[in-house]
Amino acid sequence: MSRKLKIGIAGLGRMGARHANHFNALTPRAELIAACSPAPHELEWAATNLPDVRTYSSFDEMLENETALEAVVIASITAAHAEQAIKAMQKGLHVLCEKPLSIDAEISQTVVDTYAKSIKQYPSQKVMCGFSRRFDASYQDAYAKTRSGLIGRPTIFRSQTCDKRDPSGFFINFAASSGGIFVDCSVHDIDLALWFLGEDSVIKSISAVGVSAVSPGLDAHNDRDNAVGFVEFWGGKIAYFYTCRMMAAGQEDSTEIIGTEGKLTVNMQPQMNLVSIYESTGIRKEIPQNYYDRFREALVNEANEFVACCLDDKPLPLKLSGAVSAVRIAHALQESMISGKKIDFDEAGTRIVPTLNGH
Amino acid sequence: MSRKLKIGIAGLGRMGARHANHFNALTPRAELIAACSPAPHELEWAATNLPDVRTYSSFDEMLENETALEAVVIASITAAHAEQAIKAMQKGLHVLCEKPLSIDAEISQTVVDTYAKSIKQYPSQKVMCGFSRRFDASYQDAYAKTRSGLIGRPTIFRSQTCDKRDPSGFFINFAASSGGIFVDCSVHDIDLALWFLGEDSVIKSISAVGVSAVSPGLDAHNDRDNAVGFVEFWGGKIAYFYTCRMMAAGQEDSTEIIGTEGKLTVNMQPQMNLVSIYESTGIRKEIPQNYYDRFREALVNEANEFVACCLDDKPLPLKLSGAVSAVRIAHALQESMISGKKIDFDEAGTRIVPTLNGH
Amino acid sequence: MSRKLKIGIAGLGRMGARHANHFNALTPRAELIAACSPAPHELEWAATNLPDVRTYSSFDEMLENETALEAVVIASITAAHAEQAIKAMQKGLHVLCEKPLSIDAEISQTVVDTYAKSIKQYPSQKVMCGFSRRFDASYQDAYAKTRSGLIGRPTIFRSQTCDKRDPSGFFINFAASSGGIFVDCSVHDIDLALWFLGEDSVIKSISAVGVSAVSPGLDAHNDRDNAVGFVEFWGGKIAYFYTCRMMAAGQEDSTEIIGTEGKLTVNMQPQMNLVSIYESTGIRKEIPQNYYDRFREALVNEANEFVACCLDDKPLPLKLSGAVSAVRIAHALQESMISGKKIDFDEAGTRIVPTLNGH
Amino acid sequence: MSRKLKIGIAGLGRMGARHANHFNALTPRAELIAACSPAPHELEWAATNLPDVRTYSSFDEMLENETALEAVVIASITAAHAEQAIKAMQKGLHVLCEKPLSIDAEISQTVVDTYAKSIKQYPSQKVMCGFSRRFDASYQDAYAKTRSGLIGRPTIFRSQTCDKRDPSGFFINFAASSGGIFVDCSVHDIDLALWFLGEDSVIKSISAVGVSAVSPGLDAHNDRDNAVGFVEFWGGKIAYFYTCRMMAAGQEDSTEIIGTEGKLTVNMQPQMNLVSIYESTGIRKEIPQNYYDRFREALVNEANEFVACCLDDKPLPLKLSGAVSAVRIAHALQESMISGKKIDFDEAGTRIVPTLNGH
Repeated sequence: MSRKLKIGIAGLGRMGARHANHFNALTPRAELIAACSPAPHELEWAATNLPDVRTYSSFDEMLENETALEAVVIASITAAHAEQAIKAMQKGLHVLCEKPLSIDAEISQTVVDTYAKSIKQYPSQKVMCGFSRRFDASYQDAYAKTRSGLIGRPTIFRSQTCDKRDPSGFFINFAASSGGIFVDCSVHDIDLALWFLGEDSVIKSISAVGVSAVSPGLDAHNDRDNAVGFVEFWGGKIAYFYTCRMMAAGQEDSTEIIGTEGKLTVNMQPQMNLVSIYESTGIRKEIPQNYYDRFREALVNEANEFVACCLDDKPLPLKLSGAVSAVRIAHALQESMISGKKIDFDEAGTRIVPTLNGH
Repeated sequence: MSRKLKIGIAGLGRMGARHANHFNALTPRAELIAACSPAPHELEWAATNLPDVRTYSSFDEMLENETALEAVVIASITAAHAEQAIKAMQKGLHVLCEKPLSIDAEISQTVVDTYAKSIKQYPSQKVMCGFSRRFDASYQDAYAKTRSGLIGRPTIFRSQTCDKRDPSGFFINFAASSGGIFVDCSVHDIDLALWFLGEDSVIKSISAVGVSAVSPGLDAHNDRDNAVGFVEFWGGKIAYFYTCRMMAAGQEDSTEIIGTEGKLTVNMQPQMNLVSIYESTGIRKEIPQNYYDRFREALVNEANEFVACCLDDKPLPLKLSGAVSAVRIAHALQESMISGKKIDFDEAGTRIVPTLNGH
Repeated sequence: MSRKLKIGIAGLGRMGARHANHFNALTPRAELIAACSPAPHELEWAATNLPDVRTYSSFDEMLENETALEAVVIASITAAHAEQAIKAMQKGLHVLCEKPLSIDAEISQTVVDTYAKSIKQYPSQKVMCGFSRRFDASYQDAYAKTRSGLIGRPTIFRSQTCDKRDPSGFFINFAASSGGIFVDCSVHDIDLALWFLGEDSVIKSISAVGVSAVSPGLDAHNDRDNAVGFVEFWGGKIAYFYTCRMMAAGQEDSTEIIGTEGKLTVNMQPQMNLVSIYESTGIRKEIPQNYYDRFREALVNEANEFVACCLDDKPLPLKLSGAVSAVRIAHALQESMISGKKIDFDEAGTRIVPTLNGH
Repeated sequence: MSRKLKIGIAGLGRMGARHANHFNALTPRAELIAACSPAPHELEWAATNLPDVRTYSSFDEMLENETALEAVVIASITAAHAEQAIKAMQKGLHVLCEKPLSIDAEISQTVVDTYAKSIKQYPSQKVMCGFSRRFDASYQDAYAKTRSGLIGRPTIFRSQTCDKRDPSGFFINFAASSGGIFVDCSVHDIDLALWFLGEDSVIKSISAVGVSAVSPGLDAHNDRDNAVGFVEFWGGKIAYFYTCRMMAAGQEDSTEIIGTEGKLTVNMQPQMNLVSIYESTGIRKEIPQNYYDRFREALVNEANEFVACCLDDKPLPLKLSGAVSAVRIAHALQESMISGKKIDFDEAGTRIVPTLNGH
């Protein structure tokens, strides 16, 4: 029972360092034994903050040397996710990979395909893409209530990922590699939509629009800083999304699940904590300033649940294939936003290509 | 059905002008025909704002000349309330008197006694002291729910009247004639306590403390700008109160009714309207800045209900004697706050005077 | 100053009776002198509730006989709005017409055109289409704050009109004449979008989807009980809408205005009043059950402001042409929802008809 | 840096098991090496849930055998707290003792006195009484804001500890040893009052009342299930408290800190998480059902901060003497509630004994 899962982590950047701290200190059944990063300052950070963890400047080297390794957490740059995940799988390791597997849906699919093969060889192998919001206590409560039938049949799903405005212009530089705002931000909302409306939901149509309100430079990258889109599913279900990078107050990630008999909302009034401030201008609540402020506990929970699934050989709470579905939808939203065209799909979910006679 | 009650108003100061507007324009079954005030600028206000209303510089003159008058609304200075109410009653008129009848409980009692005699002569006569909070839609809803048994037996009652800090020092000048903070402010909360816990509740003990946090000048008037007190009733019921004159954000009048099976709250989160403001410092709600911002609708409602009771000869929703009970309790709280002594009452509600051997 | 505007009302159904009460009792500067309805039970209602008002079974008759009439309020069935408005205008009367002028945009336009001519003959004539939400105190506050620059440049507008589920099936029967859910419900949100984003906003594209989740019978009328749509405007502004007829809790009409420097929300947490109920299942707030619960004060405010504009010859707060714009957009959303096609417009706002070579 | 503090725990009941889990799994810098309990079923629980921890049936035995021990966590029955704390101190161990040190203020004082002597021998020794609420993120935020001057001078402090009604009657049986509702529940609020108003605040008077609304059996133990009390401090500061054991909805522990320039509130609207439930009866929020639901994170935080202070020889965030002050005040409130008498203190904080001539 007190055996600990031996874990290595790839990438010690902003998210990587958080994961490293979680697995090192807040995941009692895990033991972080190794970490790798090509960035010298990240390795320095590890030397100070993870003194008991061996460090490497390359992923391959870590895999080669750490023969006791049982699982890897991949929090490197997105472009490295798929390759590292595949290499780790081929060694029989469990994998927790930060989202997305890749901003490219086809490459994402290869990760899923590799896992499908790998699991035949390693039947207990666990590979999960980290959609952290699924591990948030409020989303889990809303999901349990939805499953219990409290709101009847879930029909309309609204969700938004809205970041506080970052005047540093980080997003513009990041735009080239982010896959776009729907892929980078809304992919969380899309994953939630599939969770609540059914992972087997088949897309009927997609339409989106966007504007660059405060970062006109995004247009050059075929990206926007505000975007609205909807996804219609066969069988009478709709998900619609808003995402933005210019919120004044902070991180505003909220969700509504509307069913035939009731509705559930998550975080309709963001709040940092339980304090209210009464001052001459009114009553004020501070709110989370970033994703981590809001979802730190979810990430810790994710770490613990992943480890428990590996150690106890339990089924993972989310399927790897969902990560591909979410990215595919995100890409279609991004495409629709840029092209200005609605995209239709047949009942098998296959895209309908418009012909000369219209679609 | 379309007959209108002919009304005269005494006093056109801050509250008087509001009442005049309500009876003139927002009480369809009333007709404001006359108004009086000893203050020339108030009569000028009336000339402009109530052009169809005859004005007088004295109450007696108004009563003498306006032979068609059916009811008077008394919103003059507190010291004039009792005398004017008694004079109007003696003419057989209906009376709506602003609270308090008097800051002196004995004088208040004479108004009640006069009414008890007068109603024998004029059986349809209505005399009401305007505890406006009873006409607020939220308090009425809470009361109906309490009566329905929703929270079991009401046991603990908490209520506060908290004014926005007024840097003009108005309260200090007013302290000499206000009767003190419990009489001026908490009397509303005390009236509500009697309403929710039972008008027949018998006091067992009273204890209060106060501080002058921002207006040290109040001490000279035996008053304070913050006060806390409780009233224990025989039969296992407690009301406790907080009142203050230094709130930063605005008017904060909130109430909790705690029963053996549930709890109701009124206005635990003050708000001016349904708007929320998201800005770099968080999410902000503006709140009412004064009593009128919060209770304007209640006052209009009071005017309409009073008129309906007069025209339709229906029982008034609150008993005049309650106004005396509330003032008596307010005085005892004020006394306890100043003397630093708890005051005890026997099961008949008679004050127990401590003897040399203790009480 | 105390002159009263003489008003006649057409239609005494659900909304008509409310308007009649407002103009009769809660609009001090108005005098309701006449009312008409072809429905005998509505005239009976008037005989009881509006005893001082003369009644007619036809609109023409009312106009002919009531020579003192200065203004009419049109609250008859939608199909009669345009004709009655035009007839009244031609008599030189002021007109307050319930929304929509017509479910047909071309007919709506004829009302606007008639007014353009009529006002040359009667320069003080006021004709307004009753978008009541503009008279709600919270929306007015949000609008003033937006105008003041508090949120920078308004960019994204989200609004929803969501009705409580009505198990009687009323909506299905009404679907044939309602113009559809976007025309019947979202027209309010569209009007608000134009108000906040600018009345001169030019549409770039429209896309919508819908489902019939609880009223499958609506499909036969080309209608749905849940619909999501967006309107993209030239110049980098987006409005998106949700509307539904199956809310469990009650009326949920909420709005967000997202600007480059901040955000305002209206009614993100619906509430009936300021009471909270604490019981074994948690803390509960009751919410408005229908449009009137939520917007009664706005309707009264609308009546008073309309009357003031007529009596004082002030400009109306909203332009009649806006009513046509809102209906045109609503129709395009409805069309897009039914056809499954996105609709594009050029920079002049002219619809682009897709050609054989695609659009 | 990665050295871990070796810890033993005394008591594995409800709170003890929680502490054991926190120190075992959620306090990375601690190593729980031993546990003791006289209760066989608690030791069985440890065998299953703390397999790596050595267990003992007596505290003395644990202390004797575990020579590597550096700190003990005392979560045994209240009556054992003081003796165990003193024994551990005498061995030079760090001590984290659950509140209260004792329900008897004099015994509590002996713990403080022992520490005062012990620290001369062991200058790095840390002894803390676990007022867990001080480690809650919201209270810490409110405290930091208060210290920063945001609300001016803190003047009025209101706080309540309200438990969900427990129909099992547990409290009645517990009443005999709990010290009473003020000692058992309000001691947290009192400690917070001293924190926010100043640890050096000197009591001027105390008055309290209570009722047994749902558990009449409490009267036999000189206890109540609802109690209200206030503490007046010299220098113009007041704290007032409400505590109850019959809340319908759940745990409602809320606090207001009112200063001369503003106000802060903590948890004025309890909530379990960020989910809202929309159903036919309105909008509902679930709330914490017990103290642990609400303060789990605070307890984990407390464990980590205590360990950090021990390992890094940092000053503890709260003084041991405060635990005695809080218990003394709680006792005086309880006494006042039972005797029905107000208790006065002179400017040195010495109780004034009423004489034959009154006080």
